[in-house]
Amino acid sequence: MRRVLEVALEQLAAHGFERLSVPEVAALAGLNKTSVYRRWPTKADLVREALAASMGHTAEALDSGDLRADLLALARTAVVFVESPSGLAVLRTLLAEGANPEVKGLAAAMLHQQGIIGPALVFARAIARGELAQDTDVTLVLTTLAGAIMHRILIEQTPVTEHFLTALIDMVLFGVKRR
Amino acid sequence: MRRVLEVALEQLAAHGFERLSVPEVAALAGLNKTSVYRRWPTKADLVREALAASMGHTAEALDSGDLRADLLALARTAVVFVESPSGLAVLRTLLAEGANPEVKGLAAAMLHQQGIIGPALVFARAIARGELAQDTDVTLVLTTLAGAIMHRILIEQTPVTEHFLTALIDMVLFGVKRR
Repeated sequence: MRRVLEVALEQLAAHGFERLSVPEVAALAGLNKTSVYRRWPTKADLVREALAASMGHTAEALDSGDLRADLLALARTAVVFVESPSGLAVLRTLLAEGANPEVKGLAAAMLHQQGIIGPALVFARAIARGELAQDTDVTLVLTTLAGAIMHRILIEQTPVTEHFLTALIDMVLFGVKRR
Repeated sequence: MRRVLEVALEQLAAHGFERLSVPEVAALAGLNKTSVYRRWPTKADLVREALAASMGHTAEALDSGDLRADLLALARTAVVFVESPSGLAVLRTLLAEGANPEVKGLAAAMLHQQGIIGPALVFARAIARGELAQDTDVTLVLTTLAGAIMHRILIEQTPVTEHFLTALIDMVLFGVKRR
């Protein structure tokens, strides 16, 4: 079943969500479409899992005891995916098709799974340690970090350097710890 | 000639950069294609000016004497364009076509004109007033503000509220003023 997810990601990068065909993905992975649909009832289910599988280690695996170190590790992982040719193609196609309701739902689900809930664990631990205030606006911080990285890669088309990541994280963490 | 720019923006929103045709834009604007090419020798020249014309007032017009107020005004203007149906369509198509070398050049030129040099004036004044340190990383700040707004609109697909803008600008400005 791992192969199905790889093929789905390749097809998504090459053709976008709307033109991705589940029967074609099944055929390319050497499987019957019925067994693919049994596991992933909709195209969005299949694409969501393919994206999640491609994103590398998640926040559960990160617990250095230091928020800055955890965020740097999370950001480095995200950058490796987004800067890869297939990550870039996938992101471009999903952004272009953002008006499609299924793609919109997909983005919301991914944010909960990866963008918000995944990294949010790292913040929950920092709050429990007393490193951040109880009422920190975690969503604002994540939107800001993810957005800056996305802008650099997609708009400026400039590589994300270690210097950029540390300067970004230091600026945002200092801003959020002000109280 | 104003009509040509409006038509170019409509065509860009509807069809993207690659499929935009300068002769078609000229015809729809009721002009001879030769006069359009005389003023804008390439498709990229025409699109660049159409985008610049659509972005509303620039940093020159903003000089409240306070960096936070200037940034809020700039951000509000950018959000009005990016949240409009045509602004959203234009941004989506340019992001999707980011691998095209002309689109890449266009993005770089726009950043210099609007994203970097325009707002950078606001920062230059804040540095001159002593509100910010001489060696402030202005590009990092602009990447961060623009990226967070873009992420909110394109990925989260959540409206940019006044509360979001002030929380974002306060967090980033506090972070950047730390020294």
